[in-house]
Amino acid sequence: MQKPLILVANDDSIAAKGIRILAEVMSEIGEVVVIAPDTHQSGMGHAITLDRPLRVNKVKNYLPNVEAYKCSGTPADCVKFGKHFLLKGRKIDLVVSGVNHGSNSSISILYSGTMSAAIEAAIEGIPAIGFSLSDFSTDADFSHTKEYIKKIVLKALEKGLPKGVALNVNFPKISEEPIKGIKICRQTDAVFRESFEERKDPYGRPYYWMDGFLQNEDSGGGTDEDALKENYISIVPAKFDLTDYQSVETLKSWSF
Amino acid sequence: MQKPLILVANDDSIAAKGIRILAEVMSEIGEVVVIAPDTHQSGMGHAITLDRPLRVNKVKNYLPNVEAYKCSGTPADCVKFGKHFLLKGRKIDLVVSGVNHGSNSSISILYSGTMSAAIEAAIEGIPAIGFSLSDFSTDADFSHTKEYIKKIVLKALEKGLPKGVALNVNFPKISEEPIKGIKICRQTDAVFRESFEERKDPYGRPYYWMDGFLQNEDSGGGTDEDALKENYISIVPAKFDLTDYQSVETLKSWSF
Repeated sequence: MQKPLILVANDDSIAAKGIRILAEVMSEIGEVVVIAPDTHQSGMGHAITLDRPLRVNKVKNYLPNVEAYKCSGTPADCVKFGKHFLLKGRKIDLVVSGVNHGSNSSISILYSGTMSAAIEAAIEGIPAIGFSLSDFSTDADFSHTKEYIKKIVLKALEKGLPKGVALNVNFPKISEEPIKGIKICRQTDAVFRESFEERKDPYGRPYYWMDGFLQNEDSGGGTDEDALKENYISIVPAKFDLTDYQSVETLKSWSF
Repeated sequence: MQKPLILVANDDSIAAKGIRILAEVMSEIGEVVVIAPDTHQSGMGHAITLDRPLRVNKVKNYLPNVEAYKCSGTPADCVKFGKHFLLKGRKIDLVVSGVNHGSNSSISILYSGTMSAAIEAAIEGIPAIGFSLSDFSTDADFSHTKEYIKKIVLKALEKGLPKGVALNVNFPKISEEPIKGIKICRQTDAVFRESFEERKDPYGRPYYWMDGFLQNEDSGGGTDEDALKENYISIVPAKFDLTDYQSVETLKSWSF
Protein backbone atom coordinates (compact mmCIF):
# COMPACT_ATOMS: atom_id res chain seq x y z
CA MET A 1 0.00 0.00 0.00
CA GLN A 2 1.14 3.53 -0.79
CA LYS A 3 2.07 5.70 2.16
CA PRO A 4 -0.55 8.34 3.00
CA LEU A 5 0.38 11.95 2.20
CA ILE A 6 0.14 14.01 5.39
CA LEU A 7 0.29 17.80 5.65
CA VAL A 8 1.33 19.16 9.06
CA ALA A 9 0.54 22.71 10.23
CA ASN A 10 0.18 24.63 13.51
CA ASP A 11 -0.12 28.15 14.93
CA ASP A 12 2.80 28.22 17.35
CA SER A 13 5.24 28.55 14.38
CA ILE A 14 7.67 26.21 12.70
CA ALA A 15 10.07 26.70 15.64
CA ALA A 16 7.71 25.17 18.23
CA LYS A 17 8.38 21.92 20.02
CA GLY A 18 4.84 20.64 19.51
CA ILE A 19 4.88 20.60 15.70
CA ARG A 20 8.21 18.82 15.67
CA ILE A 21 6.74 16.04 17.84
CA LEU A 22 3.72 15.80 15.55
CA ALA A 23 5.87 15.67 12.39
CA GLU A 24 8.05 12.97 13.98
CA VAL A 25 5.06 10.76 14.79
CA MET A 26 3.57 11.36 11.32
CA SER A 27 6.86 10.35 9.64
CA GLU A 28 6.31 6.86 11.11
CA ILE A 29 2.98 6.71 9.26
CA GLY A 30 3.28 8.50 5.92
CA GLU A 31 4.97 10.96 3.58
CA VAL A 32 5.11 14.21 5.51
CA VAL A 33 5.11 17.84 4.37
CA VAL A 34 5.22 20.51 7.07
CA ILE A 35 4.07 24.07 6.41
CA ALA A 36 3.81 26.38 9.37
CA PRO A 37 3.83 30.09 10.17
CA ASP A 38 7.26 31.69 10.56
CA THR A 39 6.09 33.56 13.66
CA HIS A 40 3.71 32.82 16.53
CA GLN A 41 0.07 33.02 15.40
CA SER A 42 -1.88 32.05 18.52
CA GLY A 43 -5.32 33.62 18.76
CA MET A 44 -5.45 34.18 15.00
CA GLY A 45 -8.74 32.29 14.70
CA HIS A 46 -9.71 31.71 11.11
CA ALA A 47 -7.79 34.73 9.80
CA ILE A 48 -6.55 34.71 6.22
CA THR A 49 -4.16 37.13 4.54
CA LEU A 50 -5.83 39.30 1.92
CA ASP A 51 -3.95 42.60 1.99
CA ARG A 52 -0.42 41.42 1.21
CA PRO A 53 1.26 38.52 -0.55
CA LEU A 54 2.73 35.52 1.24
CA ARG A 55 6.37 34.58 1.57
CA VAL A 56 7.15 30.88 1.76
CA ASN A 57 10.64 29.45 2.32
CA LYS A 58 11.95 25.92 2.54
CA VAL A 59 13.44 24.92 5.89
CA LYS A 60 16.55 22.78 5.47
CA ASN A 61 17.33 19.80 7.71
CA TYR A 62 14.10 20.05 9.70
CA LEU A 63 13.69 16.32 10.33
CA PRO A 64 14.82 13.20 8.42
CA ASN A 65 12.38 12.35 5.60
CA VAL A 66 10.25 15.42 6.26
CA GLU A 67 9.90 18.32 3.83
CA ALA A 68 9.34 21.59 5.71
CA TYR A 69 8.35 25.14 4.80
CA LYS A 70 7.78 28.32 6.77
CA CYS A 71 5.16 30.81 5.66
CA SER A 72 4.56 34.48 6.48
CA GLY A 73 0.80 33.90 6.68
CA THR A 74 -1.74 32.53 9.12
CA PRO A 75 -2.44 28.84 9.87
CA ALA A 76 -5.40 28.87 7.43
CA ASP A 77 -3.12 30.43 4.77
CA CYS A 78 -0.61 27.60 5.33
CA VAL A 79 -3.20 24.92 4.57
CA LYS A 80 -4.50 26.79 1.52
CA PHE A 81 -0.95 27.23 0.20
CA GLY A 82 -0.10 23.61 0.91
CA LYS A 83 -3.13 22.32 -0.95
CA HIS A 84 -3.29 24.76 -3.86
CA PHE A 85 0.41 25.36 -4.51
CA LEU A 86 2.94 23.06 -2.80
CA LEU A 87 0.94 19.86 -3.29
CA LYS A 88 -1.22 21.01 -6.19
CA GLY A 89 -2.64 18.06 -8.11
CA ARG A 90 -1.80 15.53 -5.39
CA LYS A 91 -4.34 13.94 -3.05
CA ILE A 92 -3.66 14.90 0.55
CA ASP A 93 -4.85 12.06 2.78
CA LEU A 94 -4.75 13.91 6.07
CA VAL A 95 -4.02 17.33 7.55
CA VAL A 96 -2.85 17.38 11.16
CA SER A 97 -2.32 20.54 13.15
CA GLY A 98 -0.48 21.14 16.41
CA VAL A 99 0.49 19.82 18.80
CA ASN A 100 -0.63 23.13 20.25
CA HIS A 101 1.05 24.50 23.35
CA GLY A 102 -2.14 25.15 25.32
CA SER A 103 -5.66 23.71 25.39
CA ASN A 104 -8.13 24.32 22.56
CA SER A 105 -11.09 22.81 24.36
CA SER A 106 -14.44 24.54 24.78
CA ILE A 107 -14.80 27.98 23.21
CA SER A 108 -11.05 28.22 22.53
CA ILE A 109 -11.71 26.40 19.26
CA LEU A 110 -13.01 29.70 17.81
CA TYR A 111 -9.85 31.67 18.61
CA SER A 112 -7.44 28.85 17.82
CA GLY A 113 -5.17 29.06 14.80
CA THR A 114 -4.37 25.38 15.28
CA MET A 115 -8.01 24.40 14.88
CA SER A 116 -8.54 26.88 12.03
CA ALA A 117 -5.88 24.99 10.04
CA ALA A 118 -7.76 21.74 10.68
CA ILE A 119 -11.16 23.26 9.88
CA GLU A 120 -9.77 24.87 6.73
CA ALA A 121 -8.68 21.41 5.58
CA ALA A 122 -12.08 19.92 6.44
CA ILE A 123 -13.78 22.63 4.37
CA GLU A 124 -11.52 21.61 1.49
CA GLY A 125 -12.75 18.04 1.93
CA ILE A 126 -9.53 16.72 3.51
CA PRO A 127 -9.75 14.64 6.71
CA ALA A 128 -8.23 16.77 9.46
CA ILE A 129 -7.27 16.56 13.11
CA GLY A 130 -6.06 19.27 15.48
CA PHE A 131 -4.06 18.22 18.54
CA SER A 132 -3.54 20.39 21.62
CA LEU A 133 -1.94 19.90 25.01
CA SER A 134 -3.28 21.63 28.14
CA ASP A 135 0.15 23.15 28.85
CA PHE A 136 1.17 26.58 27.54
CA SER A 137 4.86 26.14 28.37
CA THR A 138 7.18 26.41 25.35
CA ASP A 139 9.09 23.43 26.74
CA ALA A 140 5.97 21.39 27.61
CA ASP A 141 6.31 17.62 28.06
CA PHE A 142 4.57 15.90 25.14
CA SER A 143 5.83 12.38 25.87
CA HIS A 144 2.43 10.99 26.93
CA THR A 145 0.76 12.25 23.73
CA LYS A 146 2.77 10.34 21.12
CA GLU A 147 1.20 6.88 21.34
CA TYR A 148 -2.31 8.38 21.36
CA ILE A 149 -1.61 10.69 18.42
CA LYS A 150 -0.50 7.66 16.42
CA LYS A 151 -3.51 5.62 17.51
CA ILE A 152 -6.01 8.38 16.66
CA VAL A 153 -4.41 9.13 13.27
CA LEU A 154 -4.29 5.46 12.26
CA LYS A 155 -7.93 5.02 13.29
CA ALA A 156 -9.00 8.11 11.32
CA LEU A 157 -7.11 6.89 8.22
CA GLU A 158 -8.69 3.44 8.59
CA LYS A 159 -12.29 4.54 9.27
CA GLY A 160 -12.35 7.83 7.35
CA LEU A 161 -13.78 10.97 8.92
CA PRO A 162 -17.34 12.19 8.28
CA LYS A 163 -17.33 14.75 5.43
CA GLY A 164 -16.47 18.28 6.53
CA VAL A 165 -15.62 17.21 10.07
CA ALA A 166 -12.33 18.04 11.82
CA LEU A 167 -11.44 16.39 15.12
CA ASN A 168 -10.49 18.66 18.01
CA VAL A 169 -8.25 16.48 20.19
CA ASN A 170 -7.09 17.79 23.57
CA PHE A 171 -4.63 16.13 25.94
CA PRO A 172 -4.44 16.71 29.68
CA LYS A 173 -1.13 18.08 30.95
CA ILE A 174 1.24 15.28 31.93
CA SER A 175 0.95 14.13 35.53
CA GLU A 176 1.75 11.21 37.84
CA GLU A 177 -1.64 9.73 37.05
CA PRO A 178 -1.77 7.77 33.77
CA ILE A 179 -4.16 8.86 31.00
CA LYS A 180 -7.51 7.09 31.52
CA GLY A 181 -8.35 6.83 27.81
CA ILE A 182 -10.20 8.73 25.08
CA LYS A 183 -13.66 10.32 25.31
CA ILE A 184 -15.80 11.56 22.42
CA CYS A 185 -17.30 14.83 23.62
CA ARG A 186 -19.28 17.91 22.78
CA GLN A 187 -17.82 21.43 22.91
CA THR A 188 -18.19 22.90 26.41
CA ASP A 189 -20.52 25.89 26.53
CA ALA A 190 -18.19 28.17 28.51
CA VAL A 191 -17.08 31.78 28.09
CA PHE A 192 -13.89 33.73 28.66
CA ARG A 193 -14.25 36.39 31.30
CA GLU A 194 -11.95 39.17 30.15
CA SER A 195 -10.52 42.14 31.89
CA PHE A 196 -8.42 45.00 30.56
CA GLU A 197 -5.58 46.51 32.52
CA GLU A 198 -4.76 50.10 31.68
CA ARG A 199 -1.09 51.13 31.79
CA LYS A 200 0.77 54.22 30.68
CA ASP A 201 3.64 54.20 28.17
CA PRO A 202 6.82 56.25 28.82
CA TYR A 203 5.11 59.17 27.06
CA GLY A 204 2.06 59.10 29.31
CA ARG A 205 -0.32 57.59 26.75
CA PRO A 206 -2.62 54.74 27.80
CA TYR A 207 -2.47 51.18 26.50
CA TYR A 208 -4.49 48.12 27.51
CA TRP A 209 -3.57 44.50 28.20
CA MET A 210 -6.30 41.93 27.82
CA ASP A 211 -6.44 39.09 30.30
CA GLY A 212 -9.08 36.47 30.97
CA PHE A 213 -10.06 33.08 32.30
CA LEU A 214 -12.46 30.39 31.13
CA GLN A 215 -15.67 30.40 33.16
CA ASN A 216 -17.39 27.05 32.81
CA GLU A 217 -20.98 26.88 33.97
CA ASP A 218 -21.89 24.02 31.63
CA SER A 219 -23.19 21.26 33.86
CA GLY A 220 -24.86 19.22 31.11
CA GLY A 221 -22.17 16.51 31.06
CA GLY A 222 -20.32 14.94 28.16
CA THR A 223 -18.15 18.00 27.48
CA ASP A 224 -14.47 18.21 26.58
CA GLU A 225 -13.74 20.14 29.77
CA ASP A 226 -15.31 17.32 31.83
CA ALA A 227 -13.16 14.72 30.07
CA LEU A 228 -9.89 16.65 30.52
CA LYS A 229 -10.61 17.24 34.20
CA GLU A 230 -10.91 13.48 34.69
CA ASN A 231 -7.58 12.92 32.88
CA TYR A 232 -9.13 11.65 29.66
CA ILE A 233 -8.15 12.76 26.16
CA SER A 234 -11.12 14.63 24.64
CA ILE A 235 -12.20 14.42 21.01
CA VAL A 236 -14.84 16.81 19.68
CA PRO A 237 -15.91 16.35 16.04
CA ALA A 238 -16.15 19.95 14.76
CA LYS A 239 -17.99 21.21 11.71
CA PHE A 240 -17.98 24.63 10.06
CA ASP A 241 -21.74 24.99 9.63
CA LEU A 242 -22.62 27.69 12.17
CA THR A 243 -26.34 27.59 11.35
CA ASP A 244 -28.43 27.14 14.49
CA TYR A 245 -31.19 25.05 12.95
CA GLN A 246 -33.45 25.39 15.97
CA SER A 247 -33.39 29.17 15.61
CA VAL A 248 -34.21 28.96 11.91
CA GLU A 249 -37.67 27.75 12.93
CA THR A 250 -38.02 30.40 15.66
CA LEU A 251 -37.09 33.21 13.30
CA LYS A 252 -39.39 31.99 10.57
CA SER A 253 -42.27 32.64 12.96
CA TRP A 254 -41.29 36.32 13.24
CA SER A 255 -43.33 38.37 10.82
CA PHE A 256 -41.18 40.95 9.06
CA MET B 1 -38.94 53.55 28.20
CA GLN B 2 -35.17 53.87 28.39
CA LYS B 3 -33.32 53.91 25.09
CA PRO B 4 -31.48 50.66 24.34
CA LEU B 5 -27.67 50.78 24.59
CA ILE B 6 -26.20 49.68 21.25
CA LEU B 7 -22.54 48.91 20.54
CA VAL B 8 -21.49 49.21 16.89
CA ALA B 9 -18.41 47.48 15.44
CA ASN B 10 -17.09 46.29 12.07
CA ASP B 11 -13.98 45.01 10.30
CA ASP B 12 -13.59 47.55 7.50
CA SER B 13 -12.32 50.14 10.05
CA ILE B 14 -13.80 53.24 11.60
CA ALA B 15 -13.23 55.11 8.33
CA ALA B 16 -15.59 52.89 6.29
CA LYS B 17 -18.82 54.13 4.81
CA GLY B 18 -20.77 51.05 5.96
CA ILE B 19 -20.26 51.54 9.70
CA ARG B 20 -21.24 55.20 9.46
CA ILE B 21 -24.54 54.18 7.83
CA LEU B 22 -25.11 51.59 10.54
CA ALA B 23 -24.31 54.04 13.36
CA GLU B 24 -26.66 56.61 11.81
CA VAL B 25 -29.56 54.15 11.67
CA MET B 26 -28.83 52.98 15.23
CA SER B 27 -28.83 56.58 16.53
CA GLU B 28 -32.53 56.72 15.56
CA ILE B 29 -33.15 53.74 17.87
CA GLY B 30 -30.90 53.98 20.90
CA GLU B 31 -27.82 55.28 22.69
CA VAL B 32 -24.92 54.43 20.40
CA VAL B 33 -21.25 53.70 21.11
CA VAL B 34 -19.03 52.87 18.14
CA ILE B 35 -15.77 50.97 18.57
CA ALA B 36 -14.03 49.85 15.41
CA PRO B 37 -10.54 48.89 14.21
CA ASP B 38 -8.29 51.79 13.17
CA THR B 39 -7.21 49.85 10.07
CA HIS B 40 -8.87 47.43 7.67
CA GLN B 41 -9.31 43.97 9.27
CA SER B 42 -11.11 41.97 6.59
CA GLY B 43 -10.40 38.25 6.67
CA MET B 44 -9.36 38.43 10.31
CA GLY B 45 -11.85 35.74 11.30
CA HIS B 46 -12.11 35.34 15.03
CA ALA B 47 -8.58 36.62 15.71
CA ILE B 48 -7.82 38.23 19.07
CA THR B 49 -4.72 40.15 20.10
CA LEU B 50 -2.64 38.31 22.68
CA ASP B 51 0.95 39.34 21.97
CA ARG B 52 0.69 43.11 22.36
CA PRO B 53 -1.47 45.62 24.19
CA LEU B 54 -4.30 47.55 22.55
CA ARG B 55 -4.43 51.25 21.80
CA VAL B 56 -7.86 52.86 21.94
CA ASN B 57 -8.54 56.51 21.05
CA LYS B 58 -11.70 58.59 21.04
CA VAL B 59 -12.79 59.88 17.64
CA LYS B 60 -14.11 63.43 17.83
CA ASN B 61 -17.13 64.66 15.87
CA TYR B 62 -17.89 61.26 14.35
CA LEU B 63 -21.66 61.68 14.22
CA PRO B 64 -24.16 63.71 16.28
CA ASN B 65 -25.12 61.87 19.50
CA VAL B 66 -22.71 59.03 18.80
CA GLU B 67 -19.65 58.26 20.92
CA ALA B 68 -16.90 56.73 18.77
CA TYR B 69 -13.55 55.02 19.40
CA LYS B 70 -10.90 53.50 17.19
CA CYS B 71 -8.92 50.52 18.38
CA SER B 72 -5.63 48.98 17.24
CA GLY B 73 -7.04 45.45 17.64
CA THR B 74 -9.28 43.06 15.76
CA PRO B 75 -13.11 43.18 15.54
CA ALA B 76 -13.37 40.60 18.35
CA ASP B 77 -10.99 42.72 20.46
CA CYS B 78 -13.23 45.75 19.88
CA VAL B 79 -16.29 43.97 21.29
CA LYS B 80 -14.35 42.62 24.26
CA PHE B 81 -12.94 46.08 25.02
CA GLY B 82 -16.36 47.68 24.60
CA LYS B 83 -18.01 45.29 27.01
CA HIS B 84 -15.29 44.88 29.62
CA PHE B 85 -13.79 48.40 29.66
CA LEU B 86 -15.67 51.18 27.89
CA LEU B 87 -19.13 50.06 29.01
CA LYS B 88 -18.10 48.05 32.06
CA GLY B 89 -20.98 47.59 34.48
CA ARG B 90 -23.63 48.68 31.97
CA LYS B 91 -26.07 46.35 30.22
CA ILE B 92 -25.50 46.37 26.45
CA ASP B 93 -28.82 45.65 24.75
CA LEU B 94 -27.46 44.92 21.29
CA VAL B 95 -24.22 44.65 19.34
CA VAL B 96 -24.43 45.35 15.63
CA SER B 97 -21.54 44.89 13.24
CA GLY B 98 -20.99 46.15 9.68
CA VAL B 99 -22.42 47.16 7.35
CA ASN B 100 -19.67 45.11 5.72
CA HIS B 101 -18.42 46.06 2.29
CA GLY B 102 -18.79 42.60 0.71
CA SER B 103 -20.97 39.55 1.32
CA ASN B 104 -20.53 37.33 4.38
CA SER B 105 -22.89 34.64 3.20
CA SER B 106 -22.04 30.94 3.07
CA ILE B 107 -18.58 29.95 4.30
CA SER B 108 -17.41 33.59 4.39
CA ILE B 109 -18.84 33.75 7.91
CA LEU B 110 -15.76 31.87 9.12
CA TYR B 111 -13.27 34.38 7.68
CA SER B 112 -15.33 37.44 8.42
CA GLY B 113 -14.19 39.93 11.03
CA THR B 114 -17.64 41.53 10.88
CA MET B 115 -19.34 38.30 11.89
CA SER B 116 -16.66 37.52 14.49
CA ALA B 117 -17.60 40.75 16.27
CA ALA B 118 -21.24 39.65 16.29
CA ILE B 119 -20.42 36.09 17.39
CA GLU B 120 -18.10 37.42 20.11
CA ALA B 121 -21.04 39.41 21.48
CA ALA B 122 -23.35 36.39 21.29
CA ILE B 123 -20.82 34.36 23.27
CA GLU B 124 -20.90 37.10 25.89
CA GLY B 125 -24.67 36.71 26.04
CA ILE B 126 -25.46 39.94 24.18
CA PRO B 127 -27.98 39.86 21.30
CA ALA B 128 -25.96 40.50 18.14
CA ILE B 129 -26.48 41.07 14.42
CA GLY B 130 -23.92 41.32 11.61
CA PHE B 131 -24.94 43.18 8.44
CA SER B 132 -23.17 42.80 5.09
CA LEU B 133 -23.77 44.09 1.58
CA SER B 134 -22.84 42.05 -1.50
CA ASP B 135 -20.71 44.89 -2.85
CA PHE B 136 -17.01 45.22 -2.11
CA SER B 137 -16.71 48.78 -3.38
CA THR B 138 -15.52 51.31 -0.78
CA ASP B 139 -18.18 53.70 -2.09
CA ALA B 140 -20.94 51.06 -2.26
CA ASP B 141 -24.56 52.25 -2.32
CA PHE B 142 -26.21 51.30 0.99
CA SER B 143 -29.42 53.29 0.51
CA HIS B 144 -31.66 50.21 0.10
CA THR B 145 -30.36 48.65 3.34
CA LYS B 146 -31.40 51.34 5.84
CA GLU B 147 -35.11 50.63 6.23
CA TYR B 148 -34.45 46.88 6.54
CA ILE B 149 -31.64 47.34 9.07
CA LYS B 150 -34.03 49.36 11.21
CA LYS B 151 -36.82 46.82 10.80
CA ILE B 152 -34.59 43.85 11.69
CA VAL B 153 -33.03 45.59 14.70
CA LEU B 154 -36.40 46.70 16.09
CA LYS B 155 -37.77 43.18 15.63
CA ALA B 156 -34.75 41.63 17.38
CA LEU B 157 -35.06 44.08 20.30
CA GLU B 158 -38.79 43.35 20.56
CA LYS B 159 -38.61 39.54 20.28
CA GLY B 160 -35.17 38.91 21.79
CA LEU B 161 -32.69 36.61 20.09
CA PRO B 162 -32.22 32.96 21.10
CA LYS B 163 -29.36 32.65 23.63
CA GLY B 164 -25.92 32.54 22.02
CA VAL B 165 -27.25 33.21 18.53
CA ALA B 166 -25.98 35.98 16.25
CA LEU B 167 -27.85 36.87 13.07
CA ASN B 168 -25.86 36.92 9.84
CA VAL B 169 -27.77 39.35 7.62
CA ASN B 170 -26.73 39.79 3.98
CA PHE B 171 -28.11 42.29 1.49
CA PRO B 172 -28.06 41.91 -2.29
CA LYS B 173 -26.20 44.65 -4.17
CA ILE B 174 -28.51 47.49 -5.16
CA SER B 175 -30.21 47.06 -8.53
CA GLU B 176 -33.17 48.28 -10.57
CA GLU B 177 -35.24 45.44 -9.15
CA PRO B 178 -36.68 46.15 -5.68
CA ILE B 179 -35.77 43.89 -2.73
CA LYS B 180 -38.28 41.03 -2.56
CA GLY B 181 -38.18 40.67 1.23
CA ILE B 182 -36.38 38.76 3.98
CA LYS B 183 -35.66 35.03 4.07
CA ILE B 184 -34.51 32.98 7.07
CA CYS B 185 -31.86 30.63 5.71
CA ARG B 186 -29.23 28.07 6.49
CA GLN B 187 -25.52 28.64 5.75
CA THR B 188 -24.70 27.54 2.18
CA ASP B 189 -22.34 24.56 2.07
CA ALA B 190 -19.91 26.04 -0.47
CA VAL B 191 -16.12 26.31 -0.61
CA PHE B 192 -13.60 28.83 -1.83
CA ARG B 193 -11.49 27.56 -4.70
CA GLU B 194 -8.14 29.25 -4.20
CA SER B 195 -5.21 29.73 -6.47
CA PHE B 196 -1.80 31.25 -5.78
CA GLU B 197 0.01 33.41 -8.29
CA GLU B 198 3.78 33.44 -7.96
CA ARG B 199 5.55 36.73 -8.69
CA LYS B 200 9.11 37.90 -8.20
CA ASP B 201 10.06 40.94 -6.12
CA PRO B 202 12.64 43.45 -7.43
CA TYR B 203 15.34 41.29 -5.78
CA GLY B 204 14.30 38.12 -7.60
CA ARG B 205 12.68 36.48 -4.56
CA PRO B 206 9.28 34.82 -4.98
CA TYR B 207 6.05 35.96 -3.30
CA TYR B 208 2.51 34.64 -3.67
CA TRP B 209 -0.87 36.31 -4.08
CA MET B 210 -3.89 34.32 -3.03
CA ASP B 211 -7.03 34.59 -5.12
CA GLY B 212 -10.23 32.56 -5.12
CA PHE B 213 -13.89 32.29 -5.90
CA LEU B 214 -16.86 30.74 -4.11
CA GLN B 215 -17.85 27.43 -5.63
CA ASN B 216 -21.42 26.61 -4.67
CA GLU B 217 -22.55 23.05 -5.31
CA ASP B 218 -25.17 23.12 -2.55
CA SER B 219 -28.45 22.26 -4.25
CA GLY B 220 -30.37 21.45 -1.08
CA GLY B 221 -32.39 24.68 -1.09
CA GLY B 222 -33.08 27.18 1.67
CA THR B 223 -29.56 28.62 1.67
CA ASP B 224 -28.42 32.22 2.02
CA GLU B 225 -26.85 32.12 -1.46
CA ASP B 226 -30.21 31.05 -2.92
CA ALA B 227 -32.00 33.93 -1.21
CA LEU B 228 -29.47 36.56 -2.32
CA LYS B 229 -29.56 35.33 -5.91
CA GLU B 230 -33.33 35.89 -5.92
CA ASN B 231 -32.88 39.43 -4.55
CA TYR B 232 -34.00 38.58 -1.02
CA ILE B 233 -32.20 39.67 2.15
CA SER B 234 -30.84 36.53 3.85
CA ILE B 235 -30.76 35.94 7.62
CA VAL B 236 -28.84 32.97 9.03
CA PRO B 237 -29.00 32.46 12.81
CA ALA B 238 -25.40 31.52 13.68
CA LYS B 239 -24.15 29.78 16.79
CA PHE B 240 -20.63 29.17 18.03
CA ASP B 241 -21.05 25.50 18.96
CA LEU B 242 -19.01 23.72 16.29
CA THR B 243 -19.81 20.24 17.64
CA ASP B 244 -21.14 17.99 14.91
CA TYR B 245 -23.55 15.99 17.06
CA GLN B 246 -24.17 13.37 14.38
CA SER B 247 -20.45 12.59 14.30
CA VAL B 248 -20.32 12.26 18.08
CA GLU B 249 -22.39 9.10 17.72
CA THR B 250 -20.30 7.81 14.78
CA LEU B 251 -17.03 8.31 16.63
CA LYS B 252 -18.34 6.69 19.80
CA SER B 253 -18.67 3.49 17.79
CA TRP B 254 -14.95 3.53 16.97
CA SER B 255 -13.09 1.37 19.43
CA PHE B 256 -9.88 3.03 20.54
